[in-house]
Amino acid sequence: MDNTLFTINNVWIMICTALVFLMHLGFSLLEIGLTRQKNTINILFKNVFILSIGLVLYALVGFNLMYPGSFIYGVLPDHFFNLFGLTMPENGLTAEYANGNYTYWTDFLFQGMFAATAATIVSGAVAERVKLGSFMIFTIIYVGIIYPIAGSWKWGTGWLDELGFYDFAGSTLVHSVGGWAALVAVWLLGARIGKFKKDGSIGAIPGHNIPLATTGVFILWLGWFGFNGGSVLSADPGKTSLVLVTTCLAAASGGLAALLVSLFRYKQYDLSMFLNGVLGGLVGITAGADVMSVTDAIVIGSIAGILIVLGVGFIDRLKLDDPVGAIAVHLICGVWGTLAVGIFGDLAGWEQFSHQIIGVVSIGAFCVTSAFTILIILKKTLGIRVSEEEEQDGLDIHEHGMDAYPDFRLNQH
Amino acid sequence: MDNTLFTINNVWIMICTALVFLMHLGFSLLEIGLTRQKNTINILFKNVFILSIGLVLYALVGFNLMYPGSFIYGVLPDHFFNLFGLTMPENGLTAEYANGNYTYWTDFLFQGMFAATAATIVSGAVAERVKLGSFMIFTIIYVGIIYPIAGSWKWGTGWLDELGFYDFAGSTLVHSVGGWAALVAVWLLGARIGKFKKDGSIGAIPGHNIPLATTGVFILWLGWFGFNGGSVLSADPGKTSLVLVTTCLAAASGGLAALLVSLFRYKQYDLSMFLNGVLGGLVGITAGADVMSVTDAIVIGSIAGILIVLGVGFIDRLKLDDPVGAIAVHLICGVWGTLAVGIFGDLAGWEQFSHQIIGVVSIGAFCVTSAFTILIILKKTLGIRVSEEEEQDGLDIHEHGMDAYPDFRLNQH
Amino acid sequence: MDNTLFTINNVWIMICTALVFLMHLGFSLLEIGLTRQKNTINILFKNVFILSIGLVLYALVGFNLMYPGSFIYGVLPDHFFNLFGLTMPENGLTAEYANGNYTYWTDFLFQGMFAATAATIVSGAVAERVKLGSFMIFTIIYVGIIYPIAGSWKWGTGWLDELGFYDFAGSTLVHSVGGWAALVAVWLLGARIGKFKKDGSIGAIPGHNIPLATTGVFILWLGWFGFNGGSVLSADPGKTSLVLVTTCLAAASGGLAALLVSLFRYKQYDLSMFLNGVLGGLVGITAGADVMSVTDAIVIGSIAGILIVLGVGFIDRLKLDDPVGAIAVHLICGVWGTLAVGIFGDLAGWEQFSHQIIGVVSIGAFCVTSAFTILIILKKTLGIRVSEEEEQDGLDIHEHGMDAYPDFRLNQH
Repeated sequence: MDNTLFTINNVWIMICTALVFLMHLGFSLLEIGLTRQKNTINILFKNVFILSIGLVLYALVGFNLMYPGSFIYGVLPDHFFNLFGLTMPENGLTAEYANGNYTYWTDFLFQGMFAATAATIVSGAVAERVKLGSFMIFTIIYVGIIYPIAGSWKWGTGWLDELGFYDFAGSTLVHSVGGWAALVAVWLLGARIGKFKKDGSIGAIPGHNIPLATTGVFILWLGWFGFNGGSVLSADPGKTSLVLVTTCLAAASGGLAALLVSLFRYKQYDLSMFLNGVLGGLVGITAGADVMSVTDAIVIGSIAGILIVLGVGFIDRLKLDDPVGAIAVHLICGVWGTLAVGIFGDLAGWEQFSHQIIGVVSIGAFCVTSAFTILIILKKTLGIRVSEEEEQDGLDIHEHGMDAYPDFRLNQH
Repeated sequence: MDNTLFTINNVWIMICTALVFLMHLGFSLLEIGLTRQKNTINILFKNVFILSIGLVLYALVGFNLMYPGSFIYGVLPDHFFNLFGLTMPENGLTAEYANGNYTYWTDFLFQGMFAATAATIVSGAVAERVKLGSFMIFTIIYVGIIYPIAGSWKWGTGWLDELGFYDFAGSTLVHSVGGWAALVAVWLLGARIGKFKKDGSIGAIPGHNIPLATTGVFILWLGWFGFNGGSVLSADPGKTSLVLVTTCLAAASGGLAALLVSLFRYKQYDLSMFLNGVLGGLVGITAGADVMSVTDAIVIGSIAGILIVLGVGFIDRLKLDDPVGAIAVHLICGVWGTLAVGIFGDLAGWEQFSHQIIGVVSIGAFCVTSAFTILIILKKTLGIRVSEEEEQDGLDIHEHGMDAYPDFRLNQH
Repeated sequence: MDNTLFTINNVWIMICTALVFLMHLGFSLLEIGLTRQKNTINILFKNVFILSIGLVLYALVGFNLMYPGSFIYGVLPDHFFNLFGLTMPENGLTAEYANGNYTYWTDFLFQGMFAATAATIVSGAVAERVKLGSFMIFTIIYVGIIYPIAGSWKWGTGWLDELGFYDFAGSTLVHSVGGWAALVAVWLLGARIGKFKKDGSIGAIPGHNIPLATTGVFILWLGWFGFNGGSVLSADPGKTSLVLVTTCLAAASGGLAALLVSLFRYKQYDLSMFLNGVLGGLVGITAGADVMSVTDAIVIGSIAGILIVLGVGFIDRLKLDDPVGAIAVHLICGVWGTLAVGIFGDLAGWEQFSHQIIGVVSIGAFCVTSAFTILIILKKTLGIRVSEEEEQDGLDIHEHGMDAYPDFRLNQH
């Protein structure tokens, strides 16, 4: 292996790692922007916690669990009962480690940044009412164990990989893994006070800082340059540049489609839908960003944008309260993106489509079961929801003794 | 061509693409920060729209139009009546495509990020009173057709390129193209209510969020690492690193000069002038960032900073209402930077100076004519300005039904 | 030297330069977020000024001073009386300049971004009461002369380097250099009105915008990818990727340790401590990021996090008023990180530990003496503290005639 190409490949993946790191800022700003000021500290705290504990856990447990090489009964990574943190192979810093694409350390850090993302997705959906301690315990288990096991089935060369399931950068393995848990958590938690009224109408709970929410979306889009671009796992010029193009065009067309549909439906230029459409397009292209044409990317993104508008309305009608639209963005568009690999692009075909369905269903079943088990135990023991008084006052004062904006005069609602 | 050098060149341009992408966040934050809270959603919406539609249009139309290879009557790109989206040449992903510097996809995406910038510049100048639908139509035409045609004359190897006109990264081709349209639009739109009083005095309309405006300037400065650094079109160590140094020193000295002049003139440490001075320095160095010495860069930046302070005052005296100073930054400093190539640095000389003047005048004439034609038609048909009631209430409520900061108590003005 | 490897090394350092540049945004947001809204413009102004003047001064004076090659009396860089700005050696743009690692321009710009950091650290500690003009003079001297001399002793191959002192990326040379000046300045300035009450209790002065403070920490963490990653001074895959891993794990464990200790001590989930713990971990790992194992990094980061909680309390008890915790983060953790090189990792040993102590003490003595001399002269002449009236009203109105948030209704305190 050429040492120079090894160096440039590794530089590219390190830069992509930094960009995926920054997505945690993007998620933080999006989540606080779309919720009320009285829960801002709480959401920021959760996000810094998820990133910090996520990286440490991935060093202690996750990385070994996710890339096992072999499995117990075909599904449980063989490191499951034998974890001992990072142990670099002898060739870990040489071109031999990963065919000259990156070092062991880069491999760990890039994947570690992904791991924390799954829990971050849940964070937005449960905002404004989840009990902090319980959420932290959930995060530890979900990021530390569930995410790596699910990931091992495909990226750890497990049974889904052998089957032929395709998920380039994680429409299913990251976004749906987070999205399924978000769905279960939202259902178990119940809606925020005031969201669904007794007369059947839906109470709008507007986000308190739209500039920061928008900043979050820009930063997430930037982060996706690394999320998808780095998932090429080398700096191959043709592949990386195609991936950036499909990613950006899907984001743009996702936003535009959501804008048009919501304009048609609600007669207003809805910025929230536009932003969530961009995110939907990004999630939608993630499973097949490397196998799509420009036209495919625009179509996949546009359909994702339409799904966002329909999905947000649908989730509302189910009386599920998802303050930031995480289920529509990460679960619905994650499933869509995964299936799209069987419909569009280089891999399209019935056989591939059936593999994609098996992947969606099996990961979904595993995540729903796991999330439900963890959360129901927490609900029956510590509780997962704050008291009504705390919810009304805001979590910031009760859990953190802090106010996000003490110099500003505020409306409480 | 060495495949490894091809890979590293392409990585550098992809990173620069990501940085130019981020400039759209920078512009968004600068624009909302320097205007009133009641128009925040509207400005954010416009910027997300510009980026999204800009990329899609550049894929459908702009890229082909801008890099035509040949021209009709010497000025109209030969693809003008024959557009059909991206069609990658056979060697588009190989080192042969662009002398080993980047792939076809990287080429498209880097240039696509530039294209949207021109309309973003206009967005700031027309803020707080432009009718959204009309602005969207203007954007589509200006980004989709006018910008690529202007660009083709130089970067598409058209007649200005043959003449010897020099514009390294777009003081004229991007910043003035946006700046001329901003000038025309501001003139046709008229001033915001309350800006120019009957007694001839100028009403201050202070920006509502200076931290976000400052953040925007930092992000724009960062983005310029990619805007200018990527315009080397390779990762050549000597050229790229010189460009980053001249860019940063021009930004710094532009800010410091504006600070000193405004301190001398207004007896106050004016942060807005400081920030616009930084931007002026950046725009000013853009045309010749690769042919200037360190001293040249400091001088060019300093003069740009002085021009900002004088320019903002001059535009006010003309009764032109430019809420964010876009005309001073992008048009005046864009012209200055373009002319500076004939005065300082490796290319300095009367002949070059005359080429620069021809470039400034011809692009200016084309842009003013185009922008005027589009906007006057829109003004006579759909109208380009919101109603007085909408302007007083703010565009956010009327066009978007949303409030940027619903939890905060606000002063309306 | 291989030209391709030269190109990739140079690209890596340029990217790291951009990331270190962005740290100035991170510091700006952290500082304004943790202070009151009435001093926001002032803090932003100081930070943009520090960056701008820092870069220009580093071109005019600092770079030559810091990398002298030889010394007068062994401690005074021989360029001290012979400065004339940047003069690129003939081979400055070739692989010969720095063993194929970067060009002269990249060298200058990367180091220049570091230089401004030292003054930025001081900016946070003196916030809300320092007289702007005096602070600007202090910055010019400290960034222009003191920082480069201190740096020359180690990075300019001076006597500390010969001795065997180790400071990979600047726990001492950047962070403590800033931290010592912060300590002296805070002591000479005195506390803000209302901080230490007559009854001996400590008045809380909460930060006004915690979302922006948190954003600042995320951006600083990102910037540290470049601060430490670029300090490898090449793109060597094994070294750079190790450095990113130790940096991120120290940040994460610093945050978690501070969280746990403050939870135990104050019975609350304290976001400020969490954030400062992250920063403490980052500063702590900086001196030895390239010689530590994963376990070392987690231990060093955790101890830094504990030191943050203890340090902030200790500084309060000394009646020193440091609004943003800069002394705990940059001085205490800077010293800790420097000493840790003698305790953990590849260099651990008594001899190394003694070198580290000599480095900490000598740089400390030099910085304390220098900062004291500059500030006491300023105090006796221009004064370093604003009037009581100005402090009560806020510096924004008095020094800048501007309000950071004019559309918002505010509480004055």
